[in-house]
Amino acid sequence: MQDILDEIVATIGASKERGKVADYIPQLACIDPNQFAITVALADGRVFSSGHSDRLFSIQSISKVFTLTIALGKLGDAVWSRVGREPSGDPFNSIVQLEHENGKPRNPFINAGAIAIADAILKGHQPKETLGEILQFVRFIADDDSIGIDEKVAQSELVTGDRNASLAHFMASFGRMKNPVDWVLGTYFHHCSIAMNTEQLARSGLFLVDNGRNPVSGTRVVSALRARRINSLMLMCGHYDGSGEFAFRVGLPGKSGVGGGILAIAPGKASIAVWSPGLDEVGNSKLGTEALEKLVQHTGWSIFG
Amino acid sequence: MQDILDEIVATIGASKERGKVADYIPQLACIDPNQFAITVALADGRVFSSGHSDRLFSIQSISKVFTLTIALGKLGDAVWSRVGREPSGDPFNSIVQLEHENGKPRNPFINAGAIAIADAILKGHQPKETLGEILQFVRFIADDDSIGIDEKVAQSELVTGDRNASLAHFMASFGRMKNPVDWVLGTYFHHCSIAMNTEQLARSGLFLVDNGRNPVSGTRVVSALRARRINSLMLMCGHYDGSGEFAFRVGLPGKSGVGGGILAIAPGKASIAVWSPGLDEVGNSKLGTEALEKLVQHTGWSIFG
Amino acid sequence: MQDILDEIVATIGASKERGKVADYIPQLACIDPNQFAITVALADGRVFSSGHSDRLFSIQSISKVFTLTIALGKLGDAVWSRVGREPSGDPFNSIVQLEHENGKPRNPFINAGAIAIADAILKGHQPKETLGEILQFVRFIADDDSIGIDEKVAQSELVTGDRNASLAHFMASFGRMKNPVDWVLGTYFHHCSIAMNTEQLARSGLFLVDNGRNPVSGTRVVSALRARRINSLMLMCGHYDGSGEFAFRVGLPGKSGVGGGILAIAPGKASIAVWSPGLDEVGNSKLGTEALEKLVQHTGWSIFG
Amino acid sequence: MQDILDEIVATIGASKERGKVADYIPQLACIDPNQFAITVALADGRVFSSGHSDRLFSIQSISKVFTLTIALGKLGDAVWSRVGREPSGDPFNSIVQLEHENGKPRNPFINAGAIAIADAILKGHQPKETLGEILQFVRFIADDDSIGIDEKVAQSELVTGDRNASLAHFMASFGRMKNPVDWVLGTYFHHCSIAMNTEQLARSGLFLVDNGRNPVSGTRVVSALRARRINSLMLMCGHYDGSGEFAFRVGLPGKSGVGGGILAIAPGKASIAVWSPGLDEVGNSKLGTEALEKLVQHTGWSIFG
Repeated sequence: MQDILDEIVATIGASKERGKVADYIPQLACIDPNQFAITVALADGRVFSSGHSDRLFSIQSISKVFTLTIALGKLGDAVWSRVGREPSGDPFNSIVQLEHENGKPRNPFINAGAIAIADAILKGHQPKETLGEILQFVRFIADDDSIGIDEKVAQSELVTGDRNASLAHFMASFGRMKNPVDWVLGTYFHHCSIAMNTEQLARSGLFLVDNGRNPVSGTRVVSALRARRINSLMLMCGHYDGSGEFAFRVGLPGKSGVGGGILAIAPGKASIAVWSPGLDEVGNSKLGTEALEKLVQHTGWSIFG
Repeated sequence: MQDILDEIVATIGASKERGKVADYIPQLACIDPNQFAITVALADGRVFSSGHSDRLFSIQSISKVFTLTIALGKLGDAVWSRVGREPSGDPFNSIVQLEHENGKPRNPFINAGAIAIADAILKGHQPKETLGEILQFVRFIADDDSIGIDEKVAQSELVTGDRNASLAHFMASFGRMKNPVDWVLGTYFHHCSIAMNTEQLARSGLFLVDNGRNPVSGTRVVSALRARRINSLMLMCGHYDGSGEFAFRVGLPGKSGVGGGILAIAPGKASIAVWSPGLDEVGNSKLGTEALEKLVQHTGWSIFG
Repeated sequence: MQDILDEIVATIGASKERGKVADYIPQLACIDPNQFAITVALADGRVFSSGHSDRLFSIQSISKVFTLTIALGKLGDAVWSRVGREPSGDPFNSIVQLEHENGKPRNPFINAGAIAIADAILKGHQPKETLGEILQFVRFIADDDSIGIDEKVAQSELVTGDRNASLAHFMASFGRMKNPVDWVLGTYFHHCSIAMNTEQLARSGLFLVDNGRNPVSGTRVVSALRARRINSLMLMCGHYDGSGEFAFRVGLPGKSGVGGGILAIAPGKASIAVWSPGLDEVGNSKLGTEALEKLVQHTGWSIFG
Repeated sequence: MQDILDEIVATIGASKERGKVADYIPQLACIDPNQFAITVALADGRVFSSGHSDRLFSIQSISKVFTLTIALGKLGDAVWSRVGREPSGDPFNSIVQLEHENGKPRNPFINAGAIAIADAILKGHQPKETLGEILQFVRFIADDDSIGIDEKVAQSELVTGDRNASLAHFMASFGRMKNPVDWVLGTYFHHCSIAMNTEQLARSGLFLVDNGRNPVSGTRVVSALRARRINSLMLMCGHYDGSGEFAFRVGLPGKSGVGGGILAIAPGKASIAVWSPGLDEVGNSKLGTEALEKLVQHTGWSIFG
């Protein structure tokens, strides 16, 4: 495994065509695109890394997997009255579908859906409290208490977050926000600004590898059924309108973030985190996707046979 | 396995709420909704059935899996210049997305996409010739030479097929039809009218279970990579705008038809065919989906863990 | 003329089917629907009224005619880089068209367009200052210094204005807001809350009757060409997606507001204000439209022959 | 008047930037763009022309004014159950709006609407018969029996008319076609292929100038109310998604065709025909629009004051 990862770093990690760093969040725009890391956390507890696997990056939308998990824990199936579970066929920040469907987001991984989830888990509490809870959960599943929020990124998003503010007010106009829009956006921007390295991120996905339990500690995080369902949502909707492409090429449930990270799950086998800041035209890490494609070729981990 | 299937027939197969038989094709509208069948063809060659597994039904859109496979064999990756591979987020017969994307269908399983695939495999030949080729392929993968086309259904579709004629002419207006629209529609309506029973249908999916080879005869149908990719497309797009729901509840690649059939693939394990004519509100077999959900609960075959 | 107006009040003004009072702004929801007024201000200076023509109502979107006029005075044709001049074919608060056209509103009379106009006339000044300017202009063209803003309505809109906040943030996300969104919305909500009676409103439209000059005082407000253009925009876009219907039935340039008022212009002949709080299904005064239709039948004032 | 027209021909008619000749109908693509003609038929019977006013051109969509008039004569207000009367906000051949509104076209002047009108006036008769009726009507209102159909253009449209075939089949799929799609399209393509010169075209519009009567012969064609309504539809919808622009710049009801013709009506004053084959980006005659703008500047004929 170490050889495979080293080869991926040496070939794909050194590629000239690295995509384009997200430029709409100032704090992300200045990231050096020549960074690359990959970590594989196996179901048996062994962890392999290569590249800059100790460098922190903004996990951005990958955090939506964690907030969805928390929301399912708090609300159960009532979550599905707030968001749907179909691919949207639209870019991550589209508002068209919302207008046609009475303000209900198609799934929890497009921006509108994640904002609705943030509203759902706030439940009238202060954003600070809720963010503490989210952080606590991420530290627990990653088994690492050092994980925190990058305040500079969060502030940077607040300042430039007009599109997300628009989505939130739009849903509010359909009576779909239970908390003040400002609170919801504050929570959303902050959980998107959680900073992790690929080692932490790979570990945090292990509960989705082993039927809802952490295979190392044996602790149950969610039921087996819920873990499968979260995986299905990651596959169907985890890469916005590039989800079909990711399933076609990689064949694993995965969630990307505009910080350049991807978390992918090979059920029963491994949790994989990869990071390369340059994005393709639909907003997913370009080299990250290529690295996962290569890894699956080597390991045969595709869920499709 | 026989016990599981018998229980499914006894419980789900006897359900009162059976959905609504497709009514826009006259010949399908008069089907008795109280029919139900399920067949599991295991990777080791054993086949189990329960219910009306010897009754022929119109496979309709399930045939799109077969025509896609043929098109990939004939054109290779050039197929993807004709159709995309993303979920559409729209109903199966929507034309909106086509207008916004220059007449290129999102994927090969929505109607427009399957019509584009029919055009691709015609390649200037007569529809009769191409239909012969399609039938020959289906008989080959199902290992059953008795499989044929229900002419009454095909005629019924031709007469009422204005929506599909609209889609075909629309694509033609973007220069995307290489053959006369009439030929393409004739081919499309006829391959949708192939009649099979669940035993034949389950056997026909075996090549997608075992990396592109028929696990019984050992014959290779497609490469392992291509089999995985077809499975990924079935999962992402096989149930129109209910694909997310099917992945969430069943967790297997599958393709439905408005005749009430579903073909589902559990990679490495089994090919499953189920049939119940009543449809849910997005056009997928209501009891068929419930039966597959139950089967996966019993067998643990979900690809998501 | 007085007889015609009295007959309109006696027949149409007494109609049982009065439409539905706007309910999304709390302060408007409690208006008594059994009020009705009509005023005709002739080009020769005579003014005729009937019904509750001295009661103040919220002019709402009718104010967009005045802010457009102010914006054209300040920016000239540069206004058209901010908003288009085509009918939108969508409801007044739709966001779909904005997404497809890079955040540029189709015309200055849909909500997004009027918000863009509010941003244009703010030009970095405080909302209070700009609102003072707007009020001054309205008082000038109506020749009535008593006209003011209903603060209760303005506050009511601020509290419930999520849809407009969404539109404003959406445009901001395309870089189309030069001032803080809060300032723009504050200005917009306040100018929509100007309160007038039909006498004041009819007088305020006189400059559009006589080629840009007030026919009574002789004062020029805008050039003849500009007056014609404002009239053309009122006809094409003044009643949202009911503009075609209004042109078909009434045949005069007009602008409606959800407070139940309509200002209509018969070029060369008269400025007409009508008020009845009940709205039809697209948000225009139901009886107000009927009254104008009847008035044009009597007077032959249609611009179409 | 002759001087004004001669000046228009000498300046605008000689412009270098002439727009682009319609290229999707082969027979139209080969028209010489350096042709230009204008005719003004006054309400008092005098007719003034300049430029190539005796050359025949394909009137294309201008014919929709005539078929609408015929349909209103045959069906009365029942026409409005077949088509709406709102601007569409979409290009002339868009299908998106149809899908969202159950196959009912927004107005009779977009292609779908005119196809629906052709279906309405067929009423089970043969296309040949109906075309005879249409020609007879056009000859009657233009008072010229030499007007005919350019068969080459009609054939050219039939061959390349996939977009219109798509629209027709789409409406048929909603049960909105009472006649075979082929008959409807044949009728539509042929009436679009009527050939006229500007003199004939200007005369044909005279009944819309004088309250539904031909002001020269005194013959009534339609009621005064109907004439006003047709004028309102021309203003609101006569230039597709450039209708707002035309109203803003010219200020007259008008209908354009992709053959480069425009028929404009100045109620009470004149019927105007202009022809220049080059089109602007939304499909309306570029120099034709400029010529009308200039003419209105000289005459003050704008309906907006």
